[in-house]
Amino acid sequence: MLPYQSLIVIEPNINVPIYRQIAGKLVALIQSGKIIPGAYLPGTREMAAITKVHRNTVINAYNELVFQGWAEAIPKKGYQIISELPVLKPRSYHPEVNFSNAPGADDIYFDRSLEHYYPGALSTVPKIIINDGFPDIDTVPFEEIMREYRNIMRAGTLKHMMSEHYDGGTPNLKNSACHFLNQTRGLHISPENIMITKGAQMAIYLASAILLKPGDHVVTCDPNYFMADEIFRRKGAIIHRVPEEHEGMDIQQLEDILKRVPVKLLYIIPHHHHPTTVTMSANRRMQLLNLVEKYQLWIIEDDYDYDFHYQNSPILPLASADHSGRIIYVGSFTKLLGPSFRMGYLIGGKALIKQANSYMRLIDLRGDSIMECALASLIDNGELSRHINRAKKLYSKRCDDAATLISNKLTHALAFHKPQGGMALWLKFKPEFPLNQVMDKAVQQGLYLAGSAYFQAEYKEVNGIRFGFASLTEAELTQAVDILEKIVRR
Amino acid sequence: MLPYQSLIVIEPNINVPIYRQIAGKLVALIQSGKIIPGAYLPGTREMAAITKVHRNTVINAYNELVFQGWAEAIPKKGYQIISELPVLKPRSYHPEVNFSNAPGADDIYFDRSLEHYYPGALSTVPKIIINDGFPDIDTVPFEEIMREYRNIMRAGTLKHMMSEHYDGGTPNLKNSACHFLNQTRGLHISPENIMITKGAQMAIYLASAILLKPGDHVVTCDPNYFMADEIFRRKGAIIHRVPEEHEGMDIQQLEDILKRVPVKLLYIIPHHHHPTTVTMSANRRMQLLNLVEKYQLWIIEDDYDYDFHYQNSPILPLASADHSGRIIYVGSFTKLLGPSFRMGYLIGGKALIKQANSYMRLIDLRGDSIMECALASLIDNGELSRHINRAKKLYSKRCDDAATLISNKLTHALAFHKPQGGMALWLKFKPEFPLNQVMDKAVQQGLYLAGSAYFQAEYKEVNGIRFGFASLTEAELTQAVDILEKIVRR
Repeated sequence: MLPYQSLIVIEPNINVPIYRQIAGKLVALIQSGKIIPGAYLPGTREMAAITKVHRNTVINAYNELVFQGWAEAIPKKGYQIISELPVLKPRSYHPEVNFSNAPGADDIYFDRSLEHYYPGALSTVPKIIINDGFPDIDTVPFEEIMREYRNIMRAGTLKHMMSEHYDGGTPNLKNSACHFLNQTRGLHISPENIMITKGAQMAIYLASAILLKPGDHVVTCDPNYFMADEIFRRKGAIIHRVPEEHEGMDIQQLEDILKRVPVKLLYIIPHHHHPTTVTMSANRRMQLLNLVEKYQLWIIEDDYDYDFHYQNSPILPLASADHSGRIIYVGSFTKLLGPSFRMGYLIGGKALIKQANSYMRLIDLRGDSIMECALASLIDNGELSRHINRAKKLYSKRCDDAATLISNKLTHALAFHKPQGGMALWLKFKPEFPLNQVMDKAVQQGLYLAGSAYFQAEYKEVNGIRFGFASLTEAELTQAVDILEKIVRR
Repeated sequence: MLPYQSLIVIEPNINVPIYRQIAGKLVALIQSGKIIPGAYLPGTREMAAITKVHRNTVINAYNELVFQGWAEAIPKKGYQIISELPVLKPRSYHPEVNFSNAPGADDIYFDRSLEHYYPGALSTVPKIIINDGFPDIDTVPFEEIMREYRNIMRAGTLKHMMSEHYDGGTPNLKNSACHFLNQTRGLHISPENIMITKGAQMAIYLASAILLKPGDHVVTCDPNYFMADEIFRRKGAIIHRVPEEHEGMDIQQLEDILKRVPVKLLYIIPHHHHPTTVTMSANRRMQLLNLVEKYQLWIIEDDYDYDFHYQNSPILPLASADHSGRIIYVGSFTKLLGPSFRMGYLIGGKALIKQANSYMRLIDLRGDSIMECALASLIDNGELSRHINRAKKLYSKRCDDAATLISNKLTHALAFHKPQGGMALWLKFKPEFPLNQVMDKAVQQGLYLAGSAYFQAEYKEVNGIRFGFASLTEAELTQAVDILEKIVRR
């Protein structure tokens, strides 16, 4: 007989009734081939003694097996495992089958994740973390969000909403978002032109998924937001790069490519480009609009950072001009309300949005209606605008402080331009200070540089990193720069 | 001179300062080619008179244009639009470029959406809505969730979490989920085997995205959850169908296909299959496990409904058996906490999960950490299990009631089997009652049948619909069945 004593161990502190624990263990033994079809289970008295439970518990467990079709009760003989059950050779997740594991972009660009420095030890964290450019979640109007959550639950309209066909966003958020975007970005869109996504990332993914076929030509900046490049790559696109200059993408080199190959899609980040933080000049925007027409391009205009422009008011998006629907406008509310507030939008022609909706349902059947309604209320009651204005003042100051500190203490080791807005600086270290070494040394000093770092793969020459300042107090900022100064000291 | 009076209209009740409104309008006129490069803007006094604002406001507006690089101030002459700006021919979102709009699955299967019946009029809603099988959100432990939200915000650990490299779920939720799933499903997984997704849908999408190449063979049930079929179709897979019988998939016909073509992936829903609500017998599960080995299949086991099994305890998932990592287990917390609580999971071998994580970041950079931490707490403090037990009692009763009512009043018009669990019945109307007609008549009586309906495309012969009972009160249920009885009365 099997050593049931060791095989059937009852866990006292879990919510599963004991009879079900026993039944479960027995099923596992059957499935693993340790109890073979046709075999008889130990008598209920015997099993009760082995497992030290009441006999009725064993009877319940055995009946459970009968219910589930694993065993049958044979009068006067006891419980027998169904004979027709085919026998299985034991296997398990280990060893697991080979699964080709080509490294994704993140394997390359996140190779200095916190996990890399503190393997397993998630309790020990560095003193200061410089992120990629996230908002300061201490400024997020959390109480207001919670209040809206409650109102929505009380309203009881949720029940209906849940049964409605979710069509790329709850109707009230699509309306409020259109109003907000038309006001702030000079767009002229109606709800049929917009869909709500999980951050700008999903919007870029969806646009690419419905536009791109393997072999299509895509143009991006050099360097470019690597997670966008990775999407285009995965969709089988051929990527062409145009240098990002102080005024934005080099239009001449762009047109040279357009003349040479049939480009399907152009991806740009006109405000505070990621990673370089460059803002594209009005002049180049106009020239781009002309190229859209001339070469019948599709453009994804990623304007994730529009609402945080400091030096003057932001330049209206290309999408606000006239482009016969060829410009797909992508943005995010996440930058406004914190990284866990996964809300973005995709704006385009009616037919394109309809397609994107169909595709999104394959990925996520319906959004987070409660959060969407809460956001709609925050827009309608003006709380969002008030929050943006508060946050802008704060971040603008922090941008000044960061720029001043770094110019004073680090310019011998790196190059940077103070951006017109956004939440990060782009620090290009000189070749004699290889970024990976800087990052490793910084961690030893308790400073974890978590911003996107460009020194791997095709970006070997760049040696630059994003330095998110928006969520740093003055003290943290000073401390961080001091640590960096020590590291790059001659 | 342009009719600025009509072109520059100031909106008093919006948050945008007046000088920026004027600047924005002027930029739009430049972009649309109405103000041509090299042209001079009206004098500030003149423009102030036209727009009825203080002259300083106009000066600010003009300076804004200079800031943004649209115009320059020429001493003694005024403000001139930069001459180098290339001229644009006006275009707009309307007319928009042609965009091929092949109908997605949802265009076919949701062709009787609420919008279809109440075009535009989202205020007028039917008396009763029968959904596809959603939980009753009145039972959701909303207060507990809110409490956890607050605790998390207070804890202040969020700031660190946000800067951490998001790796398919917050560490604490991945731990708690493993514990919960090992307990309830007899799995033996560790955090490296799981990732958190937005509902089961995203898990199916991700698994397909990394497993399937165009031309791969996939086997599903007939009928099958149409949103899964649509994913396989979009990934270019060739779909083979095996009839769903009372005990589950017809294993013999399955093996016939496996012998004929090299099948890459098998998609199954062993508990309360969608749409048919059939539960696969233990015997067939064992046979399936054998086929996995024999034919080196990949299986997606979609067990979205596992926690709501009434007649006996659920049968352990195939994934709990030994399968050398070839079974990808997919489930959802959404069925537990309501449709807007978008939480599911993907379980598989370590290498596969790593791949899926890389792919997910392309779609959604990081999950909703707050919600994930809240769920982790609900699991840890037992609230989730308590909620499941409460809900099970309620739904089990509603399942009995629905089955009884329908057998008493509708069996002459339709066929159905009472399911062992889940939140919906599968009603197959007889051919003399075409489903589309039944649905149309029902709406006229104030009953909106919102469940997945199978009578279109390849499912013409099925004429069946999902009847979600879990969120219906006894009164609503009775009323709904009475309306249907009237409709199918001889």
